[in-house]
Amino acid sequence: MSKQQLASSDCCTPISSAVLDVEQATEGAAAFKALADPVRLRLLSIIASAGDEVCVCDITPQFDVSGPTISHHLKVLREAGLVDCERRGTWVYYWPIRDRMQRIASLLATGASA
Amino acid sequence: MSKQQLASSDCCTPISSAVLDVEQATEGAAAFKALADPVRLRLLSIIASAGDEVCVCDITPQFDVSGPTISHHLKVLREAGLVDCERRGTWVYYWPIRDRMQRIASLLATGASA
Repeated sequence: MSKQQLASSDCCTPISSAVLDVEQATEGAAAFKALADPVRLRLLSIIASAGDEVCVCDITPQFDVSGPTISHHLKVLREAGLVDCERRGTWVYYWPIRDRMQRIASLLATGASA
Repeated sequence: MSKQQLASSDCCTPISSAVLDVEQATEGAAAFKALADPVRLRLLSIIASAGDEVCVCDITPQFDVSGPTISHHLKVLREAGLVDCERRGTWVYYWPIRDRMQRIASLLATGASA
């Protein structure tokens, strides 16, 4: 599923306010699947909490898994529209797509206190 | 992972505010995994949007999959602490755990507009 598809669709009506149809559920589940891995969730937290773009050279040393594995997980996050990146010289730099994170969060919003 | 473990732990510091450690990421990813299936997400939307408890007898006809498959997915949602249920007579009745939904949503909160 491309980032464009995700960005253009109305994926994120709170599930407490209306029953999802099959298409909405399929798209929402795909977004949650991108988050359903501990390495990807830590990657996203590193990128989203940095306050600035993050060089992949500073990310990889924080994990016990291989560089190619990190690259794979970053690609999944990118395809889910949660991060974007740019290559400059030797390294690739990542930043979070905060609107996309917030839209996925809004799927679960209930008005209850967290 | 039991509901008790999930409910008692501090799983839901927003990932935009701090880097998750391995344990937090593992727990958060498990929560998202429960949501990473279209049938489960539709089930949760049916239960969470009903405004009252929902009889499993009213849920199953809304899906093309078998009763045992629905039961399996409801069990996953229950084990993730997202719904709870009670058997009364022939049927089982489900309701959402809104605080748990909100806590998972808060993991992704960024302050950006949805």
